[in-house]
Amino acid sequence: MGESSGSKWPRYLQAEWGFDNHWHPAVFSHELVEGGFVSVKVLGRQILLTRAQGRVRAIIDRCAHRGVRFSAEPLCFLKGTVSCWYHGWTYSLETGELVDVLTSPNSPVVGQVKIPVFAVQERQGLVFVFIGDEPPHDLSEDVPPGFLDADTHCLGIRRTVDSNWRLGVENGFDTTHIFMHRNSPLIKGNNIALPFGFVPADRGAMDVHAHGWPKGVVDNLAQNYQPVFDAKLDGHSVLQYQFAGDEKRVAAQVSVWLPGVLKVDPFPDPSLIQYEFYVAIDATHHEYFQVLQRKVASDADIAAYTEEFDTKWRDLALHGFNDDDVWAREAQQEFYGSQNGWANEHLFPPDMCITKWRQLASTHARGITRIPNTTPDNT
Amino acid sequence: MGESSGSKWPRYLQAEWGFDNHWHPAVFSHELVEGGFVSVKVLGRQILLTRAQGRVRAIIDRCAHRGVRFSAEPLCFLKGTVSCWYHGWTYSLETGELVDVLTSPNSPVVGQVKIPVFAVQERQGLVFVFIGDEPPHDLSEDVPPGFLDADTHCLGIRRTVDSNWRLGVENGFDTTHIFMHRNSPLIKGNNIALPFGFVPADRGAMDVHAHGWPKGVVDNLAQNYQPVFDAKLDGHSVLQYQFAGDEKRVAAQVSVWLPGVLKVDPFPDPSLIQYEFYVAIDATHHEYFQVLQRKVASDADIAAYTEEFDTKWRDLALHGFNDDDVWAREAQQEFYGSQNGWANEHLFPPDMCITKWRQLASTHARGITRIPNTTPDNT
Amino acid sequence: MGESSGSKWPRYLQAEWGFDNHWHPAVFSHELVEGGFVSVKVLGRQILLTRAQGRVRAIIDRCAHRGVRFSAEPLCFLKGTVSCWYHGWTYSLETGELVDVLTSPNSPVVGQVKIPVFAVQERQGLVFVFIGDEPPHDLSEDVPPGFLDADTHCLGIRRTVDSNWRLGVENGFDTTHIFMHRNSPLIKGNNIALPFGFVPADRGAMDVHAHGWPKGVVDNLAQNYQPVFDAKLDGHSVLQYQFAGDEKRVAAQVSVWLPGVLKVDPFPDPSLIQYEFYVAIDATHHEYFQVLQRKVASDADIAAYTEEFDTKWRDLALHGFNDDDVWAREAQQEFYGSQNGWANEHLFPPDMCITKWRQLASTHARGITRIPNTTPDNT
Repeated sequence: MGESSGSKWPRYLQAEWGFDNHWHPAVFSHELVEGGFVSVKVLGRQILLTRAQGRVRAIIDRCAHRGVRFSAEPLCFLKGTVSCWYHGWTYSLETGELVDVLTSPNSPVVGQVKIPVFAVQERQGLVFVFIGDEPPHDLSEDVPPGFLDADTHCLGIRRTVDSNWRLGVENGFDTTHIFMHRNSPLIKGNNIALPFGFVPADRGAMDVHAHGWPKGVVDNLAQNYQPVFDAKLDGHSVLQYQFAGDEKRVAAQVSVWLPGVLKVDPFPDPSLIQYEFYVAIDATHHEYFQVLQRKVASDADIAAYTEEFDTKWRDLALHGFNDDDVWAREAQQEFYGSQNGWANEHLFPPDMCITKWRQLASTHARGITRIPNTTPDNT
Repeated sequence: MGESSGSKWPRYLQAEWGFDNHWHPAVFSHELVEGGFVSVKVLGRQILLTRAQGRVRAIIDRCAHRGVRFSAEPLCFLKGTVSCWYHGWTYSLETGELVDVLTSPNSPVVGQVKIPVFAVQERQGLVFVFIGDEPPHDLSEDVPPGFLDADTHCLGIRRTVDSNWRLGVENGFDTTHIFMHRNSPLIKGNNIALPFGFVPADRGAMDVHAHGWPKGVVDNLAQNYQPVFDAKLDGHSVLQYQFAGDEKRVAAQVSVWLPGVLKVDPFPDPSLIQYEFYVAIDATHHEYFQVLQRKVASDADIAAYTEEFDTKWRDLALHGFNDDDVWAREAQQEFYGSQNGWANEHLFPPDMCITKWRQLASTHARGITRIPNTTPDNT
Repeated sequence: MGESSGSKWPRYLQAEWGFDNHWHPAVFSHELVEGGFVSVKVLGRQILLTRAQGRVRAIIDRCAHRGVRFSAEPLCFLKGTVSCWYHGWTYSLETGELVDVLTSPNSPVVGQVKIPVFAVQERQGLVFVFIGDEPPHDLSEDVPPGFLDADTHCLGIRRTVDSNWRLGVENGFDTTHIFMHRNSPLIKGNNIALPFGFVPADRGAMDVHAHGWPKGVVDNLAQNYQPVFDAKLDGHSVLQYQFAGDEKRVAAQVSVWLPGVLKVDPFPDPSLIQYEFYVAIDATHHEYFQVLQRKVASDADIAAYTEEFDTKWRDLALHGFNDDDVWAREAQQEFYGSQNGWANEHLFPPDMCITKWRQLASTHARGITRIPNTTPDNT
């Protein structure tokens, strides 16, 4: 396939800081108790989240006056507001408007200053924020099909990974990267059959969903590929999978969706679907949200699933399997971050899933996050 | 007041590395024993200080030959000289001239090389250096009125703060920043009344001393402001100071002086005056000198004051109160250092003290420190 | 001698990342056992070394596909190849050609991709690699005369020094830098006479070997200089060497050779010759190889020398003496790295050895290493 050129997916190459005018998860719901504050960086913006009367609000984490972060000592003296610890400037969490100044009553600046607030949606145990200047779209446009299904329950973890967010998406959607998982504890631990690689069988069968929303690329692994369970070099077997015969089959379908969300169905077990959100923090870091979804019919189902998640899936799958992926993304950062890997890489036929994703994203992402101002202060 | 524009105080915005052609404190006198060496960075210059026959000398801390720092292993084989540990180049501390080379007697380079030396004055327990190309002015021009008064004694500490020096000056002179000190141990510890903020009453009464030297801005807090002891939001009290009735009143007058020195009179006690020097190290660090001055009439007074300083004021005031200020300056560095805060800030009426200082400094500072050469070596 | 100007040795000033089209040592032979892998950075290239069937091979440590380092988990499933841990791309160590892909048999990319391999020579216990685009020259052209002599045995150590490689060469060849060694434990420990400095006596006698290879500059210290054993300031002795009368004389001849190798003959003992290789890692680091050579006539001689090296010379000389040199090179890095020291230094007559080396190197080095691409990924 040779070198990829910038001209094939130009907007994707510009999206170092992620795609804006989309919804992105910011934290898990359980991280925000009533009256609590969490500050996170999403697409280069430092955002303060707080829960007031049950509802989550999101406001830029920077006072307009002297630029300090509210989160250094978050203060709430009146429901629905945040006060700055430095001079008591107090903002409405709903509008971002300066509504009062504790240190200087009746100041003429009140009502004259406004800071950014962000639309928030809380679904499936995640808090999503909409970053951009368009009016917020429907959340269902920016998550994979099935994610918002009723009668399902989602549990997960998040962590910061030291690589650009695009390396997260691409590693997750890459079919042949499973080679590196060959010694994963998940394989024996959950008795799943995992090939060493794939030979594309019917690549035309890859589905590109470019009309309507969500937009994504669906790869039907179970149908379109010949799995490799006997890896050879120079005609000699060097790795052979030992079948017991009762292995579970997983990952029949892998898909990726704008603005950068993976769905593996089913995984890591026939009873679960795994979603992964790769949210740009800055050019060299992304927040990695790993979510497992299960069909549930009752509170008892939820309790049982929660117990199972805590005792099994978090360690065996989300760490035992995906820690390899974190490592692989970080291993690529040097090349893509400072050695112009986007121009120097050499892709091969199984990477067609990646190139289809790049093309879709380049064409259809709503916005490219502008890299924040880093001008020195005296120029 | 809206956004501040570069055109209102252009030289102030350029003074990222401080104002030169002024005196700046470098160390405390007690840090330099006879024959001892201390190396400090002042306005971007690494300076070696040493005391020889009682007198402090200051010379650039870099050998002209191969550029190493003398201070890596400071050598003095002959009074009044410093020898480089690398090849024995030996300089006069008074003139900076190369007077001998230990490794190569009668070298033709002797007398042909000269490195910068700096004028030094030692007053009130501080060692001041004059940085710049003008002949040194009188020290009294560059310190607040009263600082050099006879029959006073000064004690203090210094430390490095991770912010630009201007954020130090502005935080110190800022009247409404006292909001953040509202829980300081100094308030109960010394029984002082500290309001949450101020409403400017008669701003015209602020005195700008722009003729003669020192030049500064004086804010008569006790006269010009209405203190806020009952802070309200939406008409409801959210913070109320509980008066006992016998609180001491402090900080009747706060002033700031070129090249960047604060005077708070009296503070932290009616018997003391606090001076603060914010000396640029580089663009993102400054040395913070905190000095408390008391009137004394005898050696016994000095001894008693020293005991009191050691057991009370250092911890209760210089740390217990001012650690908050250090924190606040560092909290602003991200905004002013890399987000163009000087253009993006929103000042309000109580910040008039700050804008008057900026204007005075921009107009009257003698020199703007040139940012040192950081050219890579092969270009 | 005044300031050195870029025009006197222009290619030397450009050689921040070393001279290519030369042989450079990469590791010691004993570091590479059969089947073992070591990854080192030489002249800005990350190189994977491995020993297969006794022979050392060197290949770029970066898979062409997605740019990860093989060395993160080096895999060899078939002798003479290395496989990437990420997708199983497998390369010939001899040619660098992609010979198979474990995850995707019969992939059309096989045979279409090639990555750099490097010529290797293993001599005197060192593994040399040839970096450059010319065909490899004879190793004897790039090491000092005598280094490859039969009936000699070499032992040594290597370590990373935080300075540009040129500061390594210049410090080693610099005659008067011995001033800083005046308190070295080697002086008493091996009873050698070490002056504090030198006065050039007959500088014309310095030999520049610019015809044929190797090319170098030879300084006959024993003949051309007047040693300083009594260092004076202002006519007064400040340092005097106390002769016992039976001191050994060392360092009769010091020479430096392209691409940047020092020879001190004899040193640190009349029975030994010391070689030092300063190999650029990047602009601010070099690998420092210290090698001691002794004439041997039998395996028993080698065993005795090895025992002596382990118990005496490694600690007393290679650390006890040369740790000072490491420190001195690092002490110059600030000046030469970011303060344009190459233009601002002031050399003096004893530095003629350094200027002769710079001129030779600038004129005759085969190639200047191009600084690797550090373009951000989205431009």
